[in-house]
Amino acid sequence: MACVPRAFGGISTGLFLLALWGVVPGDKLLVVPQDGSHWLSMKDIVEVLSGRGHDILVLVPEVNLLLKESPHYTRRTFAVPYGQEELRRRFLAFGNQQFAERSLLNASLVEYRNIMIVMDMVFANCQSLLQDSATLRFLRDSQFDALFTDPAMPCGVILAEYLGLPSVYLFRGFPCSLEHTFSRSPNPVSYVPRCYTQFSDRMTFPQRVANFLVSNLESFLFYCLYSKYEHLASALLERDVHLPALYRKVSIWLLRYDFVFEHPRPALPNMVFIGGSNCKKKGVLSQEFEAYVNASGEHGIVVFSLGSMISEIPEKRAMEIADALGKIPQTVLWRYTGTRPPNLAKNTILVKWLPQNDLLGHPKTRAFITHSGSHGIYEGICNGVPMVMLPLFGDQMDNAKRMETRGAGVSLNVLEMTSEDLANALKTVINDKSYKENIMRLSSLHKDRPIEPLDLAVFWVEFVMRHKGAPHLRPAAHDLTWYQYHSLDVIGFLLAIVLGVVFIVYKSCAFACSKCFGKKRRSKKPQKSKAH
Amino acid sequence: MACVPRAFGGISTGLFLLALWGVVPGDKLLVVPQDGSHWLSMKDIVEVLSGRGHDILVLVPEVNLLLKESPHYTRRTFAVPYGQEELRRRFLAFGNQQFAERSLLNASLVEYRNIMIVMDMVFANCQSLLQDSATLRFLRDSQFDALFTDPAMPCGVILAEYLGLPSVYLFRGFPCSLEHTFSRSPNPVSYVPRCYTQFSDRMTFPQRVANFLVSNLESFLFYCLYSKYEHLASALLERDVHLPALYRKVSIWLLRYDFVFEHPRPALPNMVFIGGSNCKKKGVLSQEFEAYVNASGEHGIVVFSLGSMISEIPEKRAMEIADALGKIPQTVLWRYTGTRPPNLAKNTILVKWLPQNDLLGHPKTRAFITHSGSHGIYEGICNGVPMVMLPLFGDQMDNAKRMETRGAGVSLNVLEMTSEDLANALKTVINDKSYKENIMRLSSLHKDRPIEPLDLAVFWVEFVMRHKGAPHLRPAAHDLTWYQYHSLDVIGFLLAIVLGVVFIVYKSCAFACSKCFGKKRRSKKPQKSKAH
Repeated sequence: MACVPRAFGGISTGLFLLALWGVVPGDKLLVVPQDGSHWLSMKDIVEVLSGRGHDILVLVPEVNLLLKESPHYTRRTFAVPYGQEELRRRFLAFGNQQFAERSLLNASLVEYRNIMIVMDMVFANCQSLLQDSATLRFLRDSQFDALFTDPAMPCGVILAEYLGLPSVYLFRGFPCSLEHTFSRSPNPVSYVPRCYTQFSDRMTFPQRVANFLVSNLESFLFYCLYSKYEHLASALLERDVHLPALYRKVSIWLLRYDFVFEHPRPALPNMVFIGGSNCKKKGVLSQEFEAYVNASGEHGIVVFSLGSMISEIPEKRAMEIADALGKIPQTVLWRYTGTRPPNLAKNTILVKWLPQNDLLGHPKTRAFITHSGSHGIYEGICNGVPMVMLPLFGDQMDNAKRMETRGAGVSLNVLEMTSEDLANALKTVINDKSYKENIMRLSSLHKDRPIEPLDLAVFWVEFVMRHKGAPHLRPAAHDLTWYQYHSLDVIGFLLAIVLGVVFIVYKSCAFACSKCFGKKRRSKKPQKSKAH
Repeated sequence: MACVPRAFGGISTGLFLLALWGVVPGDKLLVVPQDGSHWLSMKDIVEVLSGRGHDILVLVPEVNLLLKESPHYTRRTFAVPYGQEELRRRFLAFGNQQFAERSLLNASLVEYRNIMIVMDMVFANCQSLLQDSATLRFLRDSQFDALFTDPAMPCGVILAEYLGLPSVYLFRGFPCSLEHTFSRSPNPVSYVPRCYTQFSDRMTFPQRVANFLVSNLESFLFYCLYSKYEHLASALLERDVHLPALYRKVSIWLLRYDFVFEHPRPALPNMVFIGGSNCKKKGVLSQEFEAYVNASGEHGIVVFSLGSMISEIPEKRAMEIADALGKIPQTVLWRYTGTRPPNLAKNTILVKWLPQNDLLGHPKTRAFITHSGSHGIYEGICNGVPMVMLPLFGDQMDNAKRMETRGAGVSLNVLEMTSEDLANALKTVINDKSYKENIMRLSSLHKDRPIEPLDLAVFWVEFVMRHKGAPHLRPAAHDLTWYQYHSLDVIGFLLAIVLGVVFIVYKSCAFACSKCFGKKRRSKKPQKSKAH
């Protein structure tokens, strides 16, 4: 409760005075984030919560990428078994691997190995935290009101159970719609495309067959990614732990969905859609960027970034891209920290960082070259900028496909595209008016919502703190076994009755017939013998 | 668009001047309501829309109960084949029939006949409208932006198709969760109780069996209630009409749900929950009612109403109730238009009408005797007043059961209860503090929402007018046949492949065996004969 102390009668004199002065203490929130781009949306929400007077503690591995100090929250760091150099090396390897050649046969294995470069590190970091008795004791003693976590990795989920705290999850839905499996939200395979398939919600018969098969691999994927965490959780909680059962205890899922981008699908009342909460109002450009934009003339600019995790790429690829960028009349602002490609054209400016949202919001921006991570896509939609998409890993291929089928961008395979392909794609989205019209239509629908998604996210985190959860939104489905949920026991029971009745009727008829015709036959037989 | 003219370039000078003066024309909305209590929520929304500058036309049968003139909208009446006296007689008969004795065997038939007393009249009124060529021509010429209707009866649904308008439905969900069948929103029978069962979302095995069987009767119920309308629709649209296919075309379902009252269940993105939109801020009581409340002393008052449709009851029952009311120390304000029961106690005041919400909001109100219609229930929750529920028909038995299982009231069978039962129930909810605590807990959850439900309803009606629908929220499920939706064709195909492979493997093995062992057997046989 940011505005009203909960137990007015019981508060101390100091708090009472604070309340009188209008400075009322907020609730205490424990935040267990994921490092990397996942943190970007969470950070926005945490900052607003902090501004509303809540006391926020963010649990951070001492070696990290983006989880920096801030006046908005207190950081509590914990030791991890790797150093800053190892972290840098792994992210660089991860980025470079996205550009490695792969055959159709080994593509999944290469993708899996790439993900594990980062995932192994995240596991080591969770292991360190859950075995750090001093930090755990500190957390137990801190008496938080709720826990706010990104459940892509289950460390926060396990911690919520250990501390007995109601939790709020912030999520885009990676990997493979497990949020729907965990939450028992219906997930019809006939029109909800599974991840990595690049299908839309309108599938052909072969696509529906493939989607059905992929959906059956989800449990296997979960086992590969998460089984190790069950051992960690069991050791901490001193009992056998089934991880999905922990996930199910969440109070509110904040899902980074908006249906101008996602396909409409069923959801449960404790799922709140906050897609686009990262789209902020356009800020003022710095002098440096304002100068670039002003110098671009009538052709305007193109913004180019491959996200927070990949800022340099192999030289050969970089040269091909530089060649393509030289073929368009627009000024290109490219976020790139690698070696400067020797063929870089005059219209291309390399920058180590760029104010992506502010640039996309500028009326002179003509196109956005993006890796199609969900944050970038939402900023593109929000600001109505047509996209050329170079998806690299994870959900990015699916994201790109969605925007392409909505006519708001062109997607290219970064491993196969030529310099010509990229130049043509850019010319298409800039010169073919339909791309701008489509993205503007999506933008107007996206921005026309009854409440800003960021405010909605903040409301529900506060709700869970105020009411110590949201049990009235929890479906009773969680108390059923899988066969009860699908009514298999009921169907079996009714089938047994029907078969039982059919059997009894059949046997009765057979008995009656045998009595009736048996007599006749017996009474006929002597006649026959007479006739003989 | 209430605030900005849509096509600034094309508007006439008059409109331009209006816009300059800040008086901008709103969108045009056609409202097709249901008479009776259903109109109460819709009226609230229509009034706010009118205040926001929209041009609203309400289509009204010339003989009606509550659809009166108002400065907020224009009424367009159409002729109906019955008079005001017939209407009054039917509603009186409908009310009296609720108190008729019935056996377990004929209860359903009596309930069905009761409903048909009103339903037949509503059908006649729809038939008149859809055959009234002058009204239809007027509506065609009026160029509305959207149609807002209560889809409990399909007249508005058919009209939306005829006029080619995007539509918004306002609904509580009667009869029998057909809104979920029509909208292809998953409706798991294992934990979503069906209507008239009085089950909660946590069912025993026999209850789940019964729920499964009842759910299979829904199509039959639909056929009984609506098949006549398909003929009407076919005649108007000059083609064969499948009514569920028309219902599916809706843009937004405004569902009068809130999960402090309803059981949590899956929904689709075009379903918006606005339960409690009828709870207004407490107004100032008139002198008459203020005097009653003030005179009640320390014991306070009890508010008693059986809803807008039933204001008098058979004398014997009224006397039993009057007797019970005399046994409590509170002052009872009873909305009752029938003959005054001769045994009415001094503490009971009969009134022809009462300001229900304002009285429930008064701190001196101790209990609410209600027929448990959803409007009354939400007002009770909103104001935190424990209830004694006397459900009569439709969804009222289910409503009463829900509030009873939440510990916020006591439900009685109005046909079987004694005077003692009613008095005891009143004493229980007034004196047992748990009832007040439970209803206050529900009230605090109910009122803690990110946006007022009435504002949410208004937003979505305006959204549909602004964007001419909401196709981005429409699930692709509607484009699938029932067997595709359930992936039966995919499962059949995969099963055929598996069986085919098994068959081929089996046949190959059998063939190989016969080749192999056949030879052996043939080569053994001569040996055998040799041995002989």
